[in-house]
Amino acid sequence: MDIKTALLENAAKVEQALPAYLETPDPALETLYDAMRYSALGGGKRIRAFLVMEFCRLFGGTEEAALPFACAMECVHASSLIHDDMPCMDNDDYRRGKLTNHKVYGDNIALLAGDALITKGYEIAASNPAVSWASALAGAKTILRYAGGEGMMGGQEIDLLAEKKAPDFPLLLKMHAKKTGALIRASAMLGCHAAGIVNENDSRIADASVYAAGIGLAFQIIDDILDVEGDAAVLGKATHADAKEGKTTFLSFMDVPAARRYAQVETDKAIAAIGEYPGSATLIELARYLLARDH
Amino acid sequence: MDIKTALLENAAKVEQALPAYLETPDPALETLYDAMRYSALGGGKRIRAFLVMEFCRLFGGTEEAALPFACAMECVHASSLIHDDMPCMDNDDYRRGKLTNHKVYGDNIALLAGDALITKGYEIAASNPAVSWASALAGAKTILRYAGGEGMMGGQEIDLLAEKKAPDFPLLLKMHAKKTGALIRASAMLGCHAAGIVNENDSRIADASVYAAGIGLAFQIIDDILDVEGDAAVLGKATHADAKEGKTTFLSFMDVPAARRYAQVETDKAIAAIGEYPGSATLIELARYLLARDH
Repeated sequence: MDIKTALLENAAKVEQALPAYLETPDPALETLYDAMRYSALGGGKRIRAFLVMEFCRLFGGTEEAALPFACAMECVHASSLIHDDMPCMDNDDYRRGKLTNHKVYGDNIALLAGDALITKGYEIAASNPAVSWASALAGAKTILRYAGGEGMMGGQEIDLLAEKKAPDFPLLLKMHAKKTGALIRASAMLGCHAAGIVNENDSRIADASVYAAGIGLAFQIIDDILDVEGDAAVLGKATHADAKEGKTTFLSFMDVPAARRYAQVETDKAIAAIGEYPGSATLIELARYLLARDH
Repeated sequence: MDIKTALLENAAKVEQALPAYLETPDPALETLYDAMRYSALGGGKRIRAFLVMEFCRLFGGTEEAALPFACAMECVHASSLIHDDMPCMDNDDYRRGKLTNHKVYGDNIALLAGDALITKGYEIAASNPAVSWASALAGAKTILRYAGGEGMMGGQEIDLLAEKKAPDFPLLLKMHAKKTGALIRASAMLGCHAAGIVNENDSRIADASVYAAGIGLAFQIIDDILDVEGDAAVLGKATHADAKEGKTTFLSFMDVPAARRYAQVETDKAIAAIGEYPGSATLIELARYLLARDH
């Protein structure tokens, strides 16, 4: 199976599993849960979920054990998009061709839907019924640590402050490592937890983490390159948005060929971290696919 | 020791313990953590923390085991206040005589600070080092369930929708049971978990829950009465705010004497649920104190 098909099949599994977690528990809460489902269902490549599932498989765990953690990651990710799109943040009207959550439900419900969806994500992780207590607790702690102020949310803060004062290169790296990198790393680690690896010092968690950091960074570099060199029709969004907004990107510090080499080096590091494990072919393919993508 | 002193001593303990959880982990995150500390530290009666500590003590647990759960509850509560005060929600400029978070840090940082503070609260609960894995996991699951869409956040949604269409009495009850009641119940339950009670069907958890539901409802009824009959100088806020905003309250359905009787009945139910446990005198006093309060 090629990687594109594998991603599609995985996304279908996640789409099928998510609704059960997001059923309206009480008619009085219909609006809130509608808003939660609106953003959590029906879209995205589900890369984070894929990482959970693949690392669990790589280290001998079952799909049943990984799926709740995969759904948890996607809820947390979707929540961050709801809040990111709000008027006081990026003020976006559309995401993936759909109206953003607050354009449909209003700012107040969108705020609550983001709160409730991230809480649901954490709860799904803590309540994973197909793993041991130790794995569920490790999963909850990892997702909480990497989503929170030291992780994704911290990256969002650095990003906000960067609008006022252009970050230097180390700060740009830190921002990406947190803003998008943290959840990608957490996903790989949750895959390990689903496979029963709960000791933080286990070398498999370190290897998963190095892999995830590498593909996360390469992903961001390619994003910046596509904004300059990509085809708007293929991308499904306007190019040259970063320059228009005066955003600091990797291309503020290097030219496109250098950025491509940088992304290649990070991809190679990612592959080296997990390439010796039997069964890592899909993860290797994923890293290469993300490097070569045109959208 | 009288209940007022007990509350003050407990609040001091919480104020002393919280900062260690909210230290800035990285200079780039100073603004975010400043905003988190601004709302989490320095204020409030810390009733939720008190319930965690008292129920843990009642059922034979240590203060060391309860304190992290108590701090977790206060972070979750403080987060809900940050988001509640935002312009798209209640649009309040002051809380407890201090500027609200978004007035100091801006809407975007306030949004993130709320997100990061609630995540930190959940993380503190999941990472409680003074209890067993089973208790930490039970604590995390309880706090997540009662804070989330089925609990506090669901109550906030009902409250928002009630601005457009006045709730009937059952819906008013449901709103309060979730919006403020859920965290109060979770606090009592976390005290049980801290004392090692993790089985959801343990009658002590049920009793703690009945107690918390009773004092939570009485608290809300008294709030509504004080808005009509209270002394603005003692309350520290303007009275008759509910009528001005056209809010549905308990007094939309009954007169003040009937509301007082209702609050008394709920207080009695609360006391009956835990009165037979040796050592419940403080919790009985707390219920009576909350009923008789004038601010």
